[in-house]
Amino acid sequence: MNILITNDDGIYAEGLWALYKRFAKKHSVTVIAPDRERSAVGHGITLDEPLRVRKFERDDGYLGYAVSGTPVDCIKLGVVEMLDSCPDMVVSGINPGANVGVNINYSGTVCAAKEAALYGIPAIAVSIQGNQSDNYSDAAIFIEKLTMKIFKKGLPFGTFLNVNIPNIPMDKVAGIRISRHANKLYSEYFKKGVDPRNREYYWQGCDNQTFDKDLDIDGAALGENFISITPIKCDATDYSIIDDLKGWGISEIDFLQKL
Amino acid sequence: MNILITNDDGIYAEGLWALYKRFAKKHSVTVIAPDRERSAVGHGITLDEPLRVRKFERDDGYLGYAVSGTPVDCIKLGVVEMLDSCPDMVVSGINPGANVGVNINYSGTVCAAKEAALYGIPAIAVSIQGNQSDNYSDAAIFIEKLTMKIFKKGLPFGTFLNVNIPNIPMDKVAGIRISRHANKLYSEYFKKGVDPRNREYYWQGCDNQTFDKDLDIDGAALGENFISITPIKCDATDYSIIDDLKGWGISEIDFLQKL
Repeated sequence: MNILITNDDGIYAEGLWALYKRFAKKHSVTVIAPDRERSAVGHGITLDEPLRVRKFERDDGYLGYAVSGTPVDCIKLGVVEMLDSCPDMVVSGINPGANVGVNINYSGTVCAAKEAALYGIPAIAVSIQGNQSDNYSDAAIFIEKLTMKIFKKGLPFGTFLNVNIPNIPMDKVAGIRISRHANKLYSEYFKKGVDPRNREYYWQGCDNQTFDKDLDIDGAALGENFISITPIKCDATDYSIIDDLKGWGISEIDFLQKL
Repeated sequence: MNILITNDDGIYAEGLWALYKRFAKKHSVTVIAPDRERSAVGHGITLDEPLRVRKFERDDGYLGYAVSGTPVDCIKLGVVEMLDSCPDMVVSGINPGANVGVNINYSGTVCAAKEAALYGIPAIAVSIQGNQSDNYSDAAIFIEKLTMKIFKKGLPFGTFLNVNIPNIPMDKVAGIRISRHANKLYSEYFKKGVDPRNREYYWQGCDNQTFDKDLDIDGAALGENFISITPIKCDATDYSIIDDLKGWGISEIDFLQKL
């Protein structure tokens, strides 16, 4: 397979190269990743300025391309401009820090996979619990096996998989859960402070996410040492309320005439 | 009602103040908006640096707060820190330029409304066709009427409305369509160039979006001079394939043991 790998932690990140190392054994792999950390940039893209692409070579000889943009820019640049043909699969990660619940909105790692799904390319976003990990290579073995399964079975156009892996050796993992993503914001706060120039600032922080004790929820499954796999779709239309909305009378021309 | 207004075009944008002017007649309105244009930042948030908040007063006496962050930062800062109570409604816009189809992923205007919906606050994102408009005040009248309807009828937790308005006087509007959002990427390209220092760059551009001739699709309805109202939900789980995925055998412990 032709695999495109990216992330939001930037081209130097260990999790990215764990994927590269595993996939390069059997596949043709291209790494196109941000030239620096671009966490929490969501589905942002760079329109107001040009992008720069720099060939990147590690000391161990691994090769990639560092891009001055966001993770979604990396997917666009790869698919539209740099690659000779559309990749068979996009793998985004391995992100240190779980991307469960509402974090799928903020995460550049997840949004890169979503962008691939918009092109109709099978895609996975992969994250591992915690800020650092000794378990990237185990996780990469699992992910490669999962991509083989996806390649065989297929995913619907516009749907990708968001995978979260507990930060433990693979033989300690409790199992794998096909889950839904939790949809409640966690407890947040702003730390108000004064800078050295006596100007006020607000710095956002949050408590750990908590989840209902339901192993069908991504964060809850992960919390019990399961690998969580959530299918995410790009079509965000809330079909369940379309008929209700039509019943509101707002789609009558009358509603406009009475303005 | 207590209304929170934001946008992604920044605190100086005309469309923002058209909303303010209309809503301030009958409601308590707070404007919290980015201090500069932050288009296409998606659901990005600012974690690595503090946010600054500056009181902003226009020549005509209108008041607001300019924030050094993204549209989603503005919602968080308003809801978590600055406002005495949770707003009854969030209105994001009026964005010059339609936000139909896949653009809902990139648009900071749309993502601000989505962030409000994550808090369970009724929310609308509003965009008008074209890069500039003489029809903001007409659009604001319509939007205020729509918010009254939402306030009466309610929206499900985690669902908001994405509204796109044709750039014509309201009495020329063909009608209102409750629509689904189109989910296909438009034709994109990268313009490759060389800068004054002889370094290569890539600058992304795209052709106009085209839509199937189906007035149930947001962009198609807008193209025929209808106002398009699309309900968007935050829960992105693709429930339709959960059973399929369970049938793949990947959730068996066996799959892990064979790694």
